Parts: sequence; C-alpha cells; structure tokens
Amino acid sequence: MSRAANTFTTEPHLPRENMPSDSSLESIYDRIDKDKGRHIANVTRLLKQPSSSQQDIGIKECAELVAKMFEAAGCEKVEIVKTKGNPIVYGECRGESDKTLMGYFMYDTMPFNEPGWKHPAMGAKLVDMKLPAGKVKAIVNRGSDNTKGPLAAFLNSVEASNKSVGRPPCNLILVAEGEEELGSPNLPSYVQKDKKRLSRADACYFPYFAQDSDGAMNLYLGVKGVVYFELECSGKNWGRGPQEFAIHSANKAWVDSPVWRMIDALSTMTSDNGNKILIDGFYDDVAPPSEEDKEVIAASAKTFDPKATKDAMKVKRFMAPDEEKAELLNLYTYGTTLNIDGIWGGWIEKGSKTILPHKVTCKIDIRVVPNQKMDKMMPLVRKHLDKMGYNDITMREIDTGYDWCRTSVKAPVVQAFIRSFKAFGGEPTIWPTSGGSVPFFVFNRILKLPFTLGGMGHSDLAHSPNEYMVVEGNAKIAGLVEIEKFMVHFMNEFGQFV
Amino acid sequence: MSRAANTFTTEPHLPRENMPSDSSLESIYDRIDKDKGRHIANVTRLLKQPSSSQQDIGIKECAELVAKMFEAAGCEKVEIVKTKGNPIVYGECRGESDKTLMGYFMYDTMPFNEPGWKHPAMGAKLVDMKLPAGKVKAIVNRGSDNTKGPLAAFLNSVEASNKSVGRPPCNLILVAEGEEELGSPNLPSYVQKDKKRLSRADACYFPYFAQDSDGAMNLYLGVKGVVYFELECSGKNWGRGPQEFAIHSANKAWVDSPVWRMIDALSTMTSDNGNKILIDGFYDDVAPPSEEDKEVIAASAKTFDPKATKDAMKVKRFMAPDEEKAELLNLYTYGTTLNIDGIWGGWIEKGSKTILPHKVTCKIDIRVVPNQKMDKMMPLVRKHLDKMGYNDITMREIDTGYDWCRTSVKAPVVQAFIRSFKAFGGEPTIWPTSGGSVPFFVFNRILKLPFTLGGMGHSDLAHSPNEYMVVEGNAKIAGLVEIEKFMVHFMNEFGQFV
Repeated sequence: MSRAANTFTTEPHLPRENMPSDSSLESIYDRIDKDKGRHIANVTRLLKQPSSSQQDIGIKECAELVAKMFEAAGCEKVEIVKTKGNPIVYGECRGESDKTLMGYFMYDTMPFNEPGWKHPAMGAKLVDMKLPAGKVKAIVNRGSDNTKGPLAAFLNSVEASNKSVGRPPCNLILVAEGEEELGSPNLPSYVQKDKKRLSRADACYFPYFAQDSDGAMNLYLGVKGVVYFELECSGKNWGRGPQEFAIHSANKAWVDSPVWRMIDALSTMTSDNGNKILIDGFYDDVAPPSEEDKEVIAASAKTFDPKATKDAMKVKRFMAPDEEKAELLNLYTYGTTLNIDGIWGGWIEKGSKTILPHKVTCKIDIRVVPNQKMDKMMPLVRKHLDKMGYNDITMREIDTGYDWCRTSVKAPVVQAFIRSFKAFGGEPTIWPTSGGSVPFFVFNRILKLPFTLGGMGHSDLAHSPNEYMVVEGNAKIAGLVEIEKFMVHFMNEFGQFV
Repeated sequence: MSRAANTFTTEPHLPRENMPSDSSLESIYDRIDKDKGRHIANVTRLLKQPSSSQQDIGIKECAELVAKMFEAAGCEKVEIVKTKGNPIVYGECRGESDKTLMGYFMYDTMPFNEPGWKHPAMGAKLVDMKLPAGKVKAIVNRGSDNTKGPLAAFLNSVEASNKSVGRPPCNLILVAEGEEELGSPNLPSYVQKDKKRLSRADACYFPYFAQDSDGAMNLYLGVKGVVYFELECSGKNWGRGPQEFAIHSANKAWVDSPVWRMIDALSTMTSDNGNKILIDGFYDDVAPPSEEDKEVIAASAKTFDPKATKDAMKVKRFMAPDEEKAELLNLYTYGTTLNIDGIWGGWIEKGSKTILPHKVTCKIDIRVVPNQKMDKMMPLVRKHLDKMGYNDITMREIDTGYDWCRTSVKAPVVQAFIRSFKAFGGEPTIWPTSGGSVPFFVFNRILKLPFTLGGMGHSDLAHSPNEYMVVEGNAKIAGLVEIEKFMVHFMNEFGQFV
C-alpha cells in the first residue's frame, strides 16, 4: 500500500525536545537487537504458513499459529473466536500505561498461484535487492507486504517488550481476522458482539510498511471503501444464445452470443478506456476536497516523485502526465473507480476450440470515496444495466465490501504516530487517504475509535507475484529491527503522551 | 454438423428402378449384421483412445491405432506419414471397380476436459436416449460425432466388404489426419507432396452422421471457411497500464486498464450484440445466392423445422423468428461471422482478488463464405483496429484456417450419394453449405476433386459436453448397422454408376 510521498506535517502535539528519556525503551531496543535472528525466524514461520482465504487454504492452521504467536509474544489472554466464517484470533496484553491501543491485523492473504513468481510464493526466500534507496535484503513471500509481515513484526515488538521490561508501553487488544481478503464479512458482527471488551480501546492501529522504495515515509489518514461483484451474461437468463453449454461456433450464423452482449453492455458503462464512468449518479456523492485535504495535497505535490511510485509497480505512465503532480494526487485521492478485476468465458486454453460460449463472467470492483455510499454503488450499476436494456445480466455481490473511512491529522493517535516517525529521523509525508481498503469503518463507526495505519519499513507487490518485505534495510529504509523499534516507540508515545 | 433439413432433391442420375440387384452387396450386408457386436467394439476402441490435438494428448497412440484399424479393415498398403506436426495415416484398398474414392478422415478431437459431462468423456458409455425420432441407444464420448465415430463406421464397412466378398465395391485411398482441430496446418503440404498417388482418386468423401434428431436426412454441398486468431491487449504493448503483472486494483485510480481498452476495442467491431459486423469491407465479397442456392433454400424453407434444430442444441431462439424460415436458412448459409470463442484476463477464480490486470486475451473465429477470401479476413480486422487507434492490440493467428468450398448438386459423386440415401428410404434434404468447416478446399483446389460429405446416422454435440453417436437406431434414425450398409451402398453406387 506504500505510495509516493509529500512533506506536509502538522506541528507535533508535544515538541520533540520535551520528550523524557526512557531507559525502558532502551532496554526493549536492546532486546530487539539481540533477538534479530529469532525475530526474522518468527516472520518467516508466519509467512510460510499458507492462508489464502479466497481458496480456503491453510486458514485453520494459520489461526492456530497466530494464537501461539500471541502467547509467545506475552499476551495474558488469547482466544480463537469462532465466527460464521474464518475464526478471529483475539489477544490482550497489559501494558505500562492505562491507555489501550487496539491492533487490527489480518492473517489471511491473497491467492499465490499466479504465474510470474521468481521464487516460490511460500518459500520465504531471503534475497538481495537493489532499490532506489540502495541495497537491502528482502523476504519474498505472499503476505510479506499484505500483511502477515507487519503482523509478525508487531508481535516481535510486543515480545521484546515483555522479555525485557515485562510489559509493552501501553495496554494492547489484538484482533487478527482471517477474512480481510474476502471483505471481512464477519468482522462487523464480531465487533458488535464483543463491543464491551473492544470499547476499552482508545484508538485503533493497523501496522504495515509504508515507506516507498526510495525511503520516503508515508502516512495515510484514511482508506477508500470497496465493493466487489460479478456480472454474468448467460444465454439462460437472456433467453437467446446457447442456454446450457457452449455449442459449435458454426451456429453463430443464426444463434446469438452472450459474450458479444456482455461486451456491448460493458462498453456502455465507461468511455476513455474505462477512465470515465458513464453510470448515472456514479460521481454524484463524491465530496469536493476539504480544506485540510487541499493543504495536504498542495504540500505533497511539491515533492511527490511519480517515477519512484511507477517504478515500484513497473508502470510506465500514469493517467495524467508526471508533471501534473497535483492532478495525479487528486486522481489517487478522489478517484472512484470501476475496475475489471477479471473476465472469462468460453475456451481459454491453448488452441482453437471453435465454440459459441453460453456465458461470460466479469469481476468488478468499485473504490468508494467520501461521501459516496457503499450500499448505493451496486444499485447504480444495476439501474444502468436495466436502463440500457441489459436486465438479464445478473449481478452477484462477492464479499461484503468496506466503506471508506477518514481520520483527522489532528487526532492524538495520529499525532503520536507522527512523533514516532520523527524520532526515527523521518518526516512522515501525509496523504488524505490510501487508495486501498481495510475495514477501519468497523472500528471507526461501530466503536467510534480514531485510528492510524502504516509505519516504517518497505514492502510491495501486494496482490502481485514476487510480493516482498525488506528485513535488512539501509540508511533510508528501515529493516526489521528499526521497524520493531518504531512500533515500540509508537506504543510508548501513545501510552505516555496521548 | 447435422442441422435441419429440406426436401429439395435433384432427379437421380440413374432411376432407382434401373438399379441392378447385387448379390455381393447382400453378402456384405449379411457380414455387417453378423459382425455388429465386434463393429461396436471397434468404434468403442477408437473412441476411448484420447486424441486431443489442441492439448497434444494421445495423438501418436491414436495414429498407430488407426493404422492398425486400416490393416484390419483390409488395406493392402498402410503408412504412417510424418509431417511437421501430427502424422497422417495413409491407406490403400483395391476394390471391385476401377473408380477410386478418397476417404478423408480426422483422428483428432476437440479437448474433453470441459465441465458438464454426465458420463466420462472418454468412457464410451452406451446409454438409452429419447430423441424426437424415438428411443435409441447411443455412445457418449468425445469424438463420437466429430468424427472418430464415422471413421470407425467407415472402416467397419470396408472390413465387412473384404471379409465377405474379398473387396470393397470401389478402390479406396484413405487419408486420416490428426490436426483437423488445429486447422489442418500440414495437410496442404502433404497433399502437394503426395499429389501423384492422391490424384488417382475420382472424388473425395468425408463421412459423418448427418441425420437430425428427428430422422431428417441432410446433404451439404459445401463447407464454410474458418479463420481463428487471438487478440491481446496488454499494458506492455500499449505503454499504459500495468506492464508486466497485475497490480493492486487501488491503482486503477491513476493507472490505465488494458481490459477496459479491449472492451472498448471489441465494441467498435460489432453492433447488435455481435450480429452486425462493423469492420470495413467485411461483407464486401459475400456473393449473392446463386440460382441453384435460391432453389435449394426455397425448397428447404417449406419443410425446415427450426424447433428440432434448436432442441438438439438446447437453444431457445434463433436470431430470426422461427416463422421466417427462409431468413433463417439464409443466415445459416450466407452468415459470415465474427465469433468470440473465449475471453480471459485477470482473476478468474473464486472470490475477490482485487487487481488491475496487465493483459486480456480474446479468441475469435471468422466463418468465411463465398466469395470472401480467407487470407483477407485477418488483415481487415487489423486495419479496423489500426483505424480505430488500437494498433497496440496484437493479433496472433491460431491454426492455419480453411477456405470455403462448394460442389454442385449435379456432380456425379453427389448424385451417387443421393441415390444411396434413396435406397435406404430417405429423401436427402440438400443444403448449399454446412455452417462448419473441414479442409475440403485442399482436395478440391489442389487435386481438383469433386466431393461429398455426410451420410446416414445421427450424432450431435460436437465441441460440447456429452457428444454422442447413435449405434442402435429405430425406424427413423440409422443405427451402426444401417450406417455401414449405407456406406457400402454408396461405394457401390460410386464404383458402378458414376
């Protein structure tokens, strides 16, 4: 999720020079230094346990491993909570301060069977890597970026706290779900049910490695929402074309094609190669930039380096020219999208099977921005299809979707986070929102918790082959040791000074 | 390939009442009756040998089996001829007359791994089946219709001739290729190379089961041509969008989508759900119906039963209303088509992987009708894409394609074929062309041979799951015994009276 950077920062809540020296922090840091090898082994162990929720691979085993790791980190209470879907691993750890931070994590990952992996997707291979920030060592594995790497790092920081000074700097409630990649279908009802315990938290934190490949540090003040569904065009529903199976393509001469119908239908939904959405009302609720957003983006535009961001994804061109930095940042921040994640129908293997397919299916995700309403997006698509005469094309919601969520840069937990960046020598550059989606709306709207997300460290290629996380950094990019120290520092800032 | 019916017939070349009684025919028929069980076993044996050329499964083994079956049928000369691709099985069998019929066959099949098979695709299960023509027993297996079933039946008829009277009624040259489903890429060069031997043939015959499910008998005077290619839209070629792999779909906000581009491009190629092709020049060379065609279609329209044809494919509606029979027959006969055989890109498995795909691919076949030029069709598509600004979308020819091919109803081999239908109680109903494609242009244009195709018997679901051939027929549909007798009769008509 790491993307570009700006240098906009607010005044620290507590000036750096007033911060007390803290010998217990030093003890924890020392423990982290000493346990480095074992900490890398902890990361590796978690990464190598498959946990692809889309394919239901290794979920149960991974939940059990996470519970064991909670215990090993020093949690006094650990529960594997059943849900209607994959279990939630819950943990509690008493800390030095009476402030309570809720760590939200996901132990599931995307599938890892796509082609293009240079090292086994579950091999946790340690490789040398040359980044714009210089040479590093990274672990290549599905989930290293998104987000079992950050989960393991956080647990390492808790473990080091417990093993050195007996307690982490603040109370912790840990919630690790196994369905984030399915849209967290059971998280809201779990949070409702466990509201009493969870409400003791003062703020919520989702750790991940948010440094760019050139070392720039990012801080996101929110996430976009996401809605995911399938469209299916079938002869069966249409009443034309092959009904039950693909037929010999000679029959195209007198039998209709559901595939061509889907192409026609999709082509009414956007123009400009998908960049302009033609669905009535789609953009209606998109809020204009707030004054805070404008300030943040203007500051960002001054230093944002489009090239570094493109290079990390191996993308050559953005939708706007690189010179138009503010426009690019606006696209990223306010862009509500109708993306085709996948499409398939008919003969998709080698060779020339001549068939007229009976159906075609298309996966689409919509990114939802303020003040669009998550629940309104699918009905808008439905209405459009009906209006254009495609009422036979079916829509099927896949996963439950997330709403967008924003917090203010002025929230104390964000201020504590910014101060931790500064303590580690970095100016966190602040973005109004990440382009990605995590279910913060659950904590933010049900529990009314402020939140922050991200942190030191660099990783990338979430959802792609060769996903990686840096474990041995350099002057610009934090390695695992610095990441864990940063997390401890943040817990301390949060516990002592919020 | 069996499709509907008309009752147009020409005057038999030799009136039925003048035909000599033929005791040797009776002897062969007697042999066929006696060997029925073994003949079904021969069919089953050939069907159960996989030979999917698209997937390169079982080709070598099947070629060897066919060669053995040629020998067992009584061929004096059998060769497995190497080509640059799959081998051709060549056979010669001396007959009673000095006329020589070339049998063209294919021993390869479509793939058989699609879902929807009620019985194993390679299990050759004998099942009871209720057809519009009444109860029958059929073998369900890939290749039973298209066209290892007809190949085995023909070899049975040759074997019975040799075992009973010592020779089939005419000389035979047998050519079985293993790449028909790949577009017969090596057949033209083989025919050129072996021109001397092959030129001894007086006509060419491609057997298949051309009765409809209601028993109506069809005779096709030609085949359409076919061109097959892939279109690929990739970020790499476009220079926009993800270049090398799918990236996180959050990036759709500022990165282009090759999938949407492909949708846009495809949507410029047709309108009306794919039924009207918008590519400049696509229809230019389509010849108007000849006088013979008009006569044939007018006669057809009187008795053509759209329902039976639709039912066989489980199709509910044709592109024109059932009442407009002439229009339907015109569509089938003159329809040049741009069919999407398959399309795929991005995440096509279960669930909601959120990615912006880096490429999408589409398989397309064009059916070529007189006087379109096979070699002109792909360049027309290329020109269209370029004109519309999609010069980055690549085209890749898959297989070499077939040209269309027509013969006159007055050709002696066709007349012999019609007389054989009549001898078995049927009025063959004549179509100007099949909607399908076989490489007759090779024999017709290189060797200048007239040809005929089809025959008694019923089978269906070529290229679909549950492909079948009837082996035990009823009063309306020929079973294997009648099919083989019909083939013997045709050889006799051809040998004695052409």
